[in-house]
Amino acid sequence: MSEKKMHTVIFQPSGRRGQVEEGKSILQASRELGVEIEAICGEKRTCGKCKVRIEDGFFERYGVESSRNHVSEWRPVEAKFFTEERREQGYRLACVSKIHGDLVVFVPEEARAGGQVVRKAVTDRKINVNPSVRTYYIEMEPPTLHDPLGDYERVCNALKEQHGLDAPLLDYKVLLGMPDTLRAAGWKVSVSIWFGGAAPEIVRIAPGKVDRSIGLAVDVGTTSVAAYLCDLTTGEVLNYDSMMNPQVPYGEDVMSRITYAMSHEDGIHKLQDAIIEGINTIASRITEAVGFTHEDILELAIVFNTAMHHCFLGIYPEHLGLAPYAPALHHSINIKARDLGLKFCPGANVFVLPNEAGFVGADNVGVLIAEEPYNKDDRALIIDIGTNGELIMGNKEKLISSSCATGPALEGAHIKFGMRAAPGAIEKIYINPETKEPRYKVIGKDKWSDEMDPETIGTKGICGSGIIDAVAELFKAGIIDKTGKFVKNQEHPRIRRGDDGDEYVLAWANETSIGRDVTITIKDVRAVQLAKGALYAGAKIMMQKLGYDTLDRVVLAGAFGSFIDREESLVIGMFPDVPVTKAYAVGNAAGDGARMALLDADKRKEADEWARKVEYIELSVEPAFEKEFMMAMHLPHMKDKFPNLKTLLEEQGLGDLIKG
Amino acid sequence: MSEKKMHTVIFQPSGRRGQVEEGKSILQASRELGVEIEAICGEKRTCGKCKVRIEDGFFERYGVESSRNHVSEWRPVEAKFFTEERREQGYRLACVSKIHGDLVVFVPEEARAGGQVVRKAVTDRKINVNPSVRTYYIEMEPPTLHDPLGDYERVCNALKEQHGLDAPLLDYKVLLGMPDTLRAAGWKVSVSIWFGGAAPEIVRIAPGKVDRSIGLAVDVGTTSVAAYLCDLTTGEVLNYDSMMNPQVPYGEDVMSRITYAMSHEDGIHKLQDAIIEGINTIASRITEAVGFTHEDILELAIVFNTAMHHCFLGIYPEHLGLAPYAPALHHSINIKARDLGLKFCPGANVFVLPNEAGFVGADNVGVLIAEEPYNKDDRALIIDIGTNGELIMGNKEKLISSSCATGPALEGAHIKFGMRAAPGAIEKIYINPETKEPRYKVIGKDKWSDEMDPETIGTKGICGSGIIDAVAELFKAGIIDKTGKFVKNQEHPRIRRGDDGDEYVLAWANETSIGRDVTITIKDVRAVQLAKGALYAGAKIMMQKLGYDTLDRVVLAGAFGSFIDREESLVIGMFPDVPVTKAYAVGNAAGDGARMALLDADKRKEADEWARKVEYIELSVEPAFEKEFMMAMHLPHMKDKFPNLKTLLEEQGLGDLIKG
Repeated sequence: MSEKKMHTVIFQPSGRRGQVEEGKSILQASRELGVEIEAICGEKRTCGKCKVRIEDGFFERYGVESSRNHVSEWRPVEAKFFTEERREQGYRLACVSKIHGDLVVFVPEEARAGGQVVRKAVTDRKINVNPSVRTYYIEMEPPTLHDPLGDYERVCNALKEQHGLDAPLLDYKVLLGMPDTLRAAGWKVSVSIWFGGAAPEIVRIAPGKVDRSIGLAVDVGTTSVAAYLCDLTTGEVLNYDSMMNPQVPYGEDVMSRITYAMSHEDGIHKLQDAIIEGINTIASRITEAVGFTHEDILELAIVFNTAMHHCFLGIYPEHLGLAPYAPALHHSINIKARDLGLKFCPGANVFVLPNEAGFVGADNVGVLIAEEPYNKDDRALIIDIGTNGELIMGNKEKLISSSCATGPALEGAHIKFGMRAAPGAIEKIYINPETKEPRYKVIGKDKWSDEMDPETIGTKGICGSGIIDAVAELFKAGIIDKTGKFVKNQEHPRIRRGDDGDEYVLAWANETSIGRDVTITIKDVRAVQLAKGALYAGAKIMMQKLGYDTLDRVVLAGAFGSFIDREESLVIGMFPDVPVTKAYAVGNAAGDGARMALLDADKRKEADEWARKVEYIELSVEPAFEKEFMMAMHLPHMKDKFPNLKTLLEEQGLGDLIKG
Repeated sequence: MSEKKMHTVIFQPSGRRGQVEEGKSILQASRELGVEIEAICGEKRTCGKCKVRIEDGFFERYGVESSRNHVSEWRPVEAKFFTEERREQGYRLACVSKIHGDLVVFVPEEARAGGQVVRKAVTDRKINVNPSVRTYYIEMEPPTLHDPLGDYERVCNALKEQHGLDAPLLDYKVLLGMPDTLRAAGWKVSVSIWFGGAAPEIVRIAPGKVDRSIGLAVDVGTTSVAAYLCDLTTGEVLNYDSMMNPQVPYGEDVMSRITYAMSHEDGIHKLQDAIIEGINTIASRITEAVGFTHEDILELAIVFNTAMHHCFLGIYPEHLGLAPYAPALHHSINIKARDLGLKFCPGANVFVLPNEAGFVGADNVGVLIAEEPYNKDDRALIIDIGTNGELIMGNKEKLISSSCATGPALEGAHIKFGMRAAPGAIEKIYINPETKEPRYKVIGKDKWSDEMDPETIGTKGICGSGIIDAVAELFKAGIIDKTGKFVKNQEHPRIRRGDDGDEYVLAWANETSIGRDVTITIKDVRAVQLAKGALYAGAKIMMQKLGYDTLDRVVLAGAFGSFIDREESLVIGMFPDVPVTKAYAVGNAAGDGARMALLDADKRKEADEWARKVEYIELSVEPAFEKEFMMAMHLPHMKDKFPNLKTLLEEQGLGDLIKG
């Protein structure tokens, strides 16, 4: 082999450094050193994407005397892409600039490949891809009697020489298989390093060149578990899956699970085992469907409410269920997946997002980092409605949060004909104010009920969004008044007295598959009033705390928020008045937050920072809460004005219903 | 409560800081902030131990404007303990100096309580007590609805306020029991923090005030396991215990265990389980004997040879048993005790000392940090004789190491009447050069054989030190020549031909409890020559590498080294000539090194630094080795001069035996 002259090249801001042969282009050097520079034209010098800046001087800082004279001469083609000013600053195209001496090369944000991606699946959010686990391909010489250096030290030397990385820690489980892996792979391996801890740590050594590194983001809801399998390099969601929370058999809601854990021997471990096994199951399914195995998962980021958080970790949730509801910890925590019984890659870590408070968990922090109200000026209310309602309010000046027991009414539970959002559930209702006749849509059918042969509708019950619609429509049609009571002496075949008091028939028995009239009762209306009253009163207290007269927008997070009708929600007064276009759903923002934490290390810092900065308001100790709650039971409210809603209703000829 | 004025007080070099009430003494402040200042007179102002220095200025460095004017006036009693010069430097007695403003207080070495101790038991070495695990007592207010802060954050706040510590990480297993412990203990707990990782980590939260924190140091030898239970605050050895290495049934020596691991399914895990169970057993025994439990152990520091290292960790030792003998890792590693199946406190870590090379393990690094040849000028040879012989040579200029297969002869194995050092073993021999009659001592008897009724001696065999003595005495008495052969035509009842060739009767059958003459045979002499020849040749090669003509001292490490006679060792030529007073035993230096690593965090850095700085010499690839080995088989050597030994023998009238 002829002796080629070598030069030291350091890329900033990544800090990768290495020896590069004389005469190679900066683009070639970047590839050798594992620095990603955008170059979409295939080095045809036409795209101008591969802009870099040659740093002059800097010996003290980098130990290398970089100079613009160490690069080949300026080429006419470069003038197309740079102003004279940029040229003077040292900008060059990486594809045409050849290396003739030691260099420090700065890669500007716009030239960094893989930096910004827009994820397609699930919810469309911009996620910066800056994962905690990164994979590096290295090649080593095998040991000899004259060079019997240990395996770990050999790996460290290669990481240093080929990627400019200082020696990382080594996870014990990786150490176990390392000698065999290195030899079986001919000393060519991909080393995955986790940067999420106090010091970088090797979490996997895989044979050969690994193209895709994957991680999992999970949102554990009280009722369901959603999982997102992500490519840690591109940020792409490779697969999505969900399942019923396997803890449901131990209690439908948080309090009943806490009770189960406290009243059964080993109850907490049954709950923990259930969710761990559930995640193991979903991890196998979600990976195998796209050609991986659960052992390829390099990291998990996970959110849940505080009680599910404790159950997942196996912490007795006793103290969480009693005043003052102090959680075991707020801060995020990294735990080895194996310590939890999770069957991922043996060295994998689990990043558990931080909790805000006893009733505002990591899931709400997920919403927070997905929505980033702390970066915005407008005064927002973010409502995450699950079995509990969690509220965040504020803007970049100040953020507060609270939690209120909405009860399960908004999810269709404890409602006479309530059911989950499944085929046959009424999800959309309109009642004609003049005829007081309804039309509705059931899940699974394309047409409205009045466009179908009654026998083919197959109604089974009402889901959450249908219940909100029902109450709003009953009110708009004048069937119930603003206190929620049925207006007296209405003569209509659908308005009648049933076992639970006054009721309205939404579907006659022949339109159902259950052979009974599906009704909405005065008790159902009351349940919705209680739920929405709690949400509204919470929001009001929070507005008072922040000194807000009005809100600029209302964000509905959570799967449930995606299905409800924002206009109907406004009509029942689920939240204070805003222009209807300023109330919108964002889908599973908690899951998005988990995904963002998985893919972007900076989001983890944001999560810990904001989980503590958000001031939690314990509504139950607020003296004004009870009075606010009572007033908020009215439709839409006893006293508050709804100018935006009034305008909307005026357009429908219903302006008199509410105050302006 | 009246508002007391508070001042910031910072103690150096510990860096502890906190708010202290106006008018308190510096000694009181030190106790509040957990800084230990010596004060043996009980504040009677008579001992003068509590000397501290008030630092002036330093705002930029500490963020606090410290001033000598912030302390109460100089008291006449202080003049007894300080020179005028010291007074000008700002020295005061902490017990009489009252705080009237912000202060930076330097606590000099001599005033630091518990800093330096001299350990009494086992081997007397000065160990600086600077453990990786430290325990802090904190008191907290319980949470309320108005202060529902999480448990972990509450602990962190208390650590900050009461000890000036930044929030440590929290081990997952500690988190599990934390909520209950805090409440059951009335929010008064002792928090043990491990500083051995990349960031401090809470490894235990114990109720109330814990007086003693304990750790374990273990030396796993091929044949035996030694354990030292240490007080992590005082450095004291609270208990010592040892046991047979439970891996012995799988192979007496290293190579046979490697073979077992490779040739039996799950062989490595059997070996690992055996040693882990052994350490669990010894940990229970050693703690319970002094009123603790194995769950009180906060950290383990452990040494072994490289093969035992791999077996302990469960790494297949296949590659270690084959050229080029590269170990899986050299560097030290911290592993959670639970990951290894060790039953200590659930958050405990294991510090595994680094390996030097494939055949020079962490035990030799233990010897290195115990002996510190790198801090000394004189040219030392340190020999650790176990089943393998490990050699370190050099001084602060340069250190090299090597390993040679001495075989088990020096431990009494593969010797016709060889046995372990146990009652009945001949441990000391003298042969009269004129009468060629021996006298000897057996373990368990106070008198020499010729002072006893033969029937009461009860000889059973010869242990390692006896075998060295036998060969040396046979040589000195002219019974064998310098090649190890029996001199021809000797007429003596004790010199005869047996099954194994020429032999010498050490003990007649009536002096034994086995009813047979105990002899030393030509084959036994040959075995000793092979062992000592390997050690000597190794030392010679190392001297050549270092350019040494002579050595200044020889250190015999290991239990075996403590029992052999240094003069007899010199006579047989186990190591190159030094003045006999400059050859000395230091006991189990490897175990001492483990103990020092447990007790002094700085020793861990030293271990990693020197494990790599010591240059390992692979003797088997040294061209000169074979010739040196052959010459070193002679007694004491074929060619080398032994001037010191000659002087010694001349005093005994045996000067002609060897070259000067």
